[in-house]
Amino acid sequence: MMGAVHAVPLHAETGDDAWLRYAPLDAVARKKYESLPASVLTLGDSPVLGAAQGELIRGVRGMMGRTLREGKSLPQENAFVLGTLAELHKADPALRAPGDLREDSFWLTTVRVHGFACLIITSPTDRGVLYGVFALLAKMARNETVASLNEVQQPFAPIRWVNQWDNLNGSIERGYGGRSIFFDAGSVRSDLTRAGDYARLLASVGINGCAINNVNADSRILKDDFLPQLARIADVFRPWGVRLAIAIDVSSPKVIGGLDTFDPLDPGVSDWWRKKVDEIYQQIPDFAGFIVKADSEGRLGPSTYGRTPADAANVIARALKPHGGLVFYRAFVYNHHLDWRNPKNDRARAAYDIFHPLDGKFDDNVVIQIKYGPIDFQVREPVSPLFGGLRSTNEAIELQITQEYLGQQRHLCFLPPMWKETLDFDLHAAGRSTPVKDLVAGKSFHRPTGGFVGVANVGLDADWLGHPLALANLYGFGRLAWNPNLSSGTIANEWTRMTFGNNPTVVRTISAMQLASWRIYENYTGPLGAGTLTNILGSHYGPGVESSERNGWGQWHRADHQGIGMDRTVATGTGYVGQYPAPVAGKYESLKSTPDELLLFFHHVPYTYVLHSGKTVIQYIYDSHYEGAQQAQGLVGQWESLKNDLDDEVYAAVLARLQYQAGHAIVWRDAVCNWFLRMSGIPDAKGRVGHYPNRIEAEGMQLQGYAPFDVIPQETGSGGKGIECAPPLQHCDASFRFDRAAGWYELDVEYFDQINGESKFRLFVGNQQVDEWVADDHLPAIKPGGDSSTRRRITGLALRPGDEIRIEGFPDGKELAPLDYVEVFARSQ
Amino acid sequence: MMGAVHAVPLHAETGDDAWLRYAPLDAVARKKYESLPASVLTLGDSPVLGAAQGELIRGVRGMMGRTLREGKSLPQENAFVLGTLAELHKADPALRAPGDLREDSFWLTTVRVHGFACLIITSPTDRGVLYGVFALLAKMARNETVASLNEVQQPFAPIRWVNQWDNLNGSIERGYGGRSIFFDAGSVRSDLTRAGDYARLLASVGINGCAINNVNADSRILKDDFLPQLARIADVFRPWGVRLAIAIDVSSPKVIGGLDTFDPLDPGVSDWWRKKVDEIYQQIPDFAGFIVKADSEGRLGPSTYGRTPADAANVIARALKPHGGLVFYRAFVYNHHLDWRNPKNDRARAAYDIFHPLDGKFDDNVVIQIKYGPIDFQVREPVSPLFGGLRSTNEAIELQITQEYLGQQRHLCFLPPMWKETLDFDLHAAGRSTPVKDLVAGKSFHRPTGGFVGVANVGLDADWLGHPLALANLYGFGRLAWNPNLSSGTIANEWTRMTFGNNPTVVRTISAMQLASWRIYENYTGPLGAGTLTNILGSHYGPGVESSERNGWGQWHRADHQGIGMDRTVATGTGYVGQYPAPVAGKYESLKSTPDELLLFFHHVPYTYVLHSGKTVIQYIYDSHYEGAQQAQGLVGQWESLKNDLDDEVYAAVLARLQYQAGHAIVWRDAVCNWFLRMSGIPDAKGRVGHYPNRIEAEGMQLQGYAPFDVIPQETGSGGKGIECAPPLQHCDASFRFDRAAGWYELDVEYFDQINGESKFRLFVGNQQVDEWVADDHLPAIKPGGDSSTRRRITGLALRPGDEIRIEGFPDGKELAPLDYVEVFARSQ
Repeated sequence: MMGAVHAVPLHAETGDDAWLRYAPLDAVARKKYESLPASVLTLGDSPVLGAAQGELIRGVRGMMGRTLREGKSLPQENAFVLGTLAELHKADPALRAPGDLREDSFWLTTVRVHGFACLIITSPTDRGVLYGVFALLAKMARNETVASLNEVQQPFAPIRWVNQWDNLNGSIERGYGGRSIFFDAGSVRSDLTRAGDYARLLASVGINGCAINNVNADSRILKDDFLPQLARIADVFRPWGVRLAIAIDVSSPKVIGGLDTFDPLDPGVSDWWRKKVDEIYQQIPDFAGFIVKADSEGRLGPSTYGRTPADAANVIARALKPHGGLVFYRAFVYNHHLDWRNPKNDRARAAYDIFHPLDGKFDDNVVIQIKYGPIDFQVREPVSPLFGGLRSTNEAIELQITQEYLGQQRHLCFLPPMWKETLDFDLHAAGRSTPVKDLVAGKSFHRPTGGFVGVANVGLDADWLGHPLALANLYGFGRLAWNPNLSSGTIANEWTRMTFGNNPTVVRTISAMQLASWRIYENYTGPLGAGTLTNILGSHYGPGVESSERNGWGQWHRADHQGIGMDRTVATGTGYVGQYPAPVAGKYESLKSTPDELLLFFHHVPYTYVLHSGKTVIQYIYDSHYEGAQQAQGLVGQWESLKNDLDDEVYAAVLARLQYQAGHAIVWRDAVCNWFLRMSGIPDAKGRVGHYPNRIEAEGMQLQGYAPFDVIPQETGSGGKGIECAPPLQHCDASFRFDRAAGWYELDVEYFDQINGESKFRLFVGNQQVDEWVADDHLPAIKPGGDSSTRRRITGLALRPGDEIRIEGFPDGKELAPLDYVEVFARSQ
Repeated sequence: MMGAVHAVPLHAETGDDAWLRYAPLDAVARKKYESLPASVLTLGDSPVLGAAQGELIRGVRGMMGRTLREGKSLPQENAFVLGTLAELHKADPALRAPGDLREDSFWLTTVRVHGFACLIITSPTDRGVLYGVFALLAKMARNETVASLNEVQQPFAPIRWVNQWDNLNGSIERGYGGRSIFFDAGSVRSDLTRAGDYARLLASVGINGCAINNVNADSRILKDDFLPQLARIADVFRPWGVRLAIAIDVSSPKVIGGLDTFDPLDPGVSDWWRKKVDEIYQQIPDFAGFIVKADSEGRLGPSTYGRTPADAANVIARALKPHGGLVFYRAFVYNHHLDWRNPKNDRARAAYDIFHPLDGKFDDNVVIQIKYGPIDFQVREPVSPLFGGLRSTNEAIELQITQEYLGQQRHLCFLPPMWKETLDFDLHAAGRSTPVKDLVAGKSFHRPTGGFVGVANVGLDADWLGHPLALANLYGFGRLAWNPNLSSGTIANEWTRMTFGNNPTVVRTISAMQLASWRIYENYTGPLGAGTLTNILGSHYGPGVESSERNGWGQWHRADHQGIGMDRTVATGTGYVGQYPAPVAGKYESLKSTPDELLLFFHHVPYTYVLHSGKTVIQYIYDSHYEGAQQAQGLVGQWESLKNDLDDEVYAAVLARLQYQAGHAIVWRDAVCNWFLRMSGIPDAKGRVGHYPNRIEAEGMQLQGYAPFDVIPQETGSGGKGIECAPPLQHCDASFRFDRAAGWYELDVEYFDQINGESKFRLFVGNQQVDEWVADDHLPAIKPGGDSSTRRRITGLALRPGDEIRIEGFPDGKELAPLDYVEVFARSQ
């Protein structure tokens, strides 16, 4: 077993290695590990043990500048010893593990073997040995002591998976980190280097399964000619102990199988699945299983034949059973043509209504995969009641690492604090304490399996997710799946140390930014459990308060002139609250005992309703959005304080993201506040909303060529209007007269940066050009509005009363150099 | 006059901006400049004044984050005021310059104008105003005070030029920073952005002329269709006050002019030159003149017709005269077929012998361009006696910024200390003090013009010269041309602050490295004035001690079995010493009074000759080469101490260069020492030379496929031999048994990295691969030897007695995976 040699280049803080940088340790830390052995002995032989040994050598070389000697037999000198408990016991019968070690757990211990000091990394499984190596290297990267180690770590649950929503054409649904690492143009990529690198990242935090394709599955993935391609991916996963899974289309027997039905109770269909699965296992002996999305958002499912999800799941599960494979059946099943006029209709009820009656009807190798909340990955949702509603069925929680509704990696949003709230939530199922983490791990009702699924959607971008700091979410998901009792603070601290080193200022600052970020994002995007007030019909990105109303998608917040919120009580509402066990239902049924942060999820209240905090709902909406926007600006300053402590490249990349976020937070703030001001008619007690003394609306400027247009929805443009420079004009002007006192000023130009053009702008003071820029970002928008609204900040301008300030716009493609407004702030320079 | 807007991106410490980064100042420095005016008023209108105003705005914006307001009329508020003395006087007759300001000088002063505090930057010329702006911005970049400024700076000499040796095909003779910024494929480039950027760099240190093409000139440059292309370059130079010049072929009247002669005394030839020059000035009104290399190294010249250099220079000078143009006639004229068997022959005599008799025969717009030493840009030469030999003729000193014989920008070699020794050297011409700087500036004999020419050879590489630290030589040349009385320490300090910021550790360390580097390079490459012991017939790069001997090029050091050195005395040698004025000649004529560092230039001595230092010549050769190689390794450590204080990219780029240099210094050390050991038969008193206890010669290893070959010249391979893996073999092995004590070791593999192949190497300890690399550098070598010899350092290996160490080589192209030796050092890790 010859370890591959990895060069140890200069360690940039971004890039493929993510938190596995193994950057050279400083002298003090090196000293600490100087007496570690110079050899590594690996007992036994397997791809996973080979990866474990290679990783140890790579890590020690990176951090210590030493190349460990490889060996196979018991030591003639001090050594690291890697091997399963069985191999270890064979080599030295005196070695015995402390207590009962579960699959994938590991034991790190320092003992004398044949008179030599050995650091032993062992486990019941090869995979556990690999995890032990990663754990040891992580300790070194964090400068923790490894002297006299004697430590056992056991995974909380057997299922610790990620899903990728990659399409076979190479795009990724809700992916924000580039193209697929698996697929391109309808086939598996020829170069799977990044897929192997990904498996290494996953293994380092204990993730043992990965489904690689979109749950809105293309049935071609099961075609005969595709299976050898899948086997190539399984090959690069295998050394890292990551098992391959795929999402499937339940109509495959008909679509690609040549049958005239996919009825799960049809013997031909059952036969087809068995043969197909056997074929897969011939090529991929450690294949992990299937993900199923059926009868959901237009996907076909068992309802076509009047069958239940259990029927559909079991026919496939039985094909997998002999090989040890699993079916993950997603509980994300609901009617998306719900009649919004019926106040009793409630999408939140769907999963429980459908799956609770089927409890006990699923085979033992079926897992119901349940999103954390009853709606869809919103910034704040209560826990899905279905977690407590399945007691004779395996379940797994579906968390979303990719930030679909949470800023799409353009906004910083560290998710472990949100996930922890769900995982720690006690549903009191069956009259006793049943935190969600215990339920999904199968502990509460002694299920054979269960666990955690994270929708990751990494891509080919060097930083995997599109924002260097977003990698903390992938890391955090893995760590919580391994041990949900870790605190968010611990996770943030670990990740920061491994990614940016152990400089205390850096660790403190970045951890604090991460830990505050979810609440900041919630502050400026969505109040009191109403959900994210985003455009739910399109990009799921910028503000779009009304997009959830008056349509069948059921993400209603029911805001009107009087009040806001969904009445989901049993007494007067949709009855959803009744899906919770009594102790929980009791809390949510009453307005008084419902926590403020979920108030509008459960109750419809007038804007003047007074919260526990003492504020009215409407004033809370105003205040939280102003506070959030200010906090987002604060993140920029925190990051800037680290300028001299970070790698220049990552510093610049993150700074640009945070500055954008701070600008977009203002777009969110203004859109939400103005919408509610208009709807409620109740002014902001602090006089901010609707009053912008430093703002000059573009439509109010002196225009040459430029013409006003209505921004849709209106709250996503300041004053509801912007200006555009329409063909055949190639160039337009907007100007205004500066009339304040002479001094140093900052000018913020709010413009719209669509993806369907690259307009150019120039800014003049008098005849002097003081800035120019191109609107060439790739935001998810083809028209001016909340998705595309972007801020250009020009600082250090000496303005004098009477100055003419003028913007020249040069349209390009379908992007008509659109402008919203300019803000002028006095700033000492 | 609208200033172009330059974005102020993150400031990398490498790249186009070189020392003009204008990086944001820290808070303390900002404070210092906070009360500077917010406006800039520019009196008058010209491209140069426009550039000056734009530069001031750009610099202040970069460092202070402020955009100055542009204005044209006298201030309504505090302001920077830019304008010539004439314009200034027109605007406010009370303003008067202190004393007499020469052309291009400038005055920075703080005065009240119409009651407002103004910082005035003025000069007799537009160019001087631009220089004043650069001087002010440089002060700010170095955090120097600018309060109550009242400072005049005057240039030391009117001629402050660079030459580029660019070929029309885009290559550059002796250029090491990439392809030409001016030419590509026989024409002027369409994109001249870098040419403009270069002119800006030049202007920032007061350089006012640039000849853009190889002195081995292609006559096509004077063709009618080329002139408009040259005009485009003049256009991008003009705003920066840099005048365009070109090198010409004196045979042009015949080669491209259609005449049957280029005899300078032929009236048709004279007529041709007049018409050609008129044509040039029609298109380039500020054209600066011509450089002439004639009768030199195979170039045609006036000797074809029995005419003198004065005849050739004057016919061209008379054509230029009406337009104010100059002819630079290079004194680098010598016979390169000199009979080496005649001990009286001496190339060093040539320039003086040819040009001294012509003194007074050159027109007043002719300048004789004289290399600093009598040979050719060697690491140590005495001053050219011709500087004192022309008293009625203009002269300029030719210095070489590109490191042709001085490591070609792969070795650090900061040249101002060397240049200073030449410039400060007192030739005592005409019985009084005449330092070279005064002679070349025309001060000693009251010449109308004179000055400094630097051969720069920048290229398209981002760092211009191929080594980020080499830019200090371009900067230093400009600073010395402006003021040769500046110390090398001041120049190093200035450049480091402007390039890397004002962190005292950084400034101290980099300045110290620069200041030591020339002597370090001399130590390991060339002793006691014998010249650089390089391969003079080929690349002028690696060692090649005998290449100078027994051929007509005349760079002889006359080393034989008894002794070394050229006897150039009047009494017994070539008589060259007699070209110096008596006080200088007296010093060099006597062995006793000749300084050690130039001993071998003037005298032939036995190896046992005892130096002033008390060492024998041979022991000095050994000691200085060992000391130099050790100092080169020390540079690596000094640089590594700055890891956390520098931009990552430049840190990595320079570190790689310094590590290479340290390895190549050992190649130099061993080649030179072994050559002299073999020649002299006198052992190293310290027992180092020829004894390498840690070295395993490749030819002595266990070979599979590999076969030994003779390295030529033999001293450039250890033991005179290497090993190669010849076709049809695709792979060879060389191995040896490690027999020292168990411990941590470093392994240095010396291999040959040619430009005509990219061999691959793998290193194994036992069956464990511990390193692999590709020989893909672009060194100037197509065979194994001193030019290609390269070191791969593998650290942190735990070796045990009995280990087999094996190198696998995979040849590629004409590079046969050649190896020289391995060295094994015990190093604690």
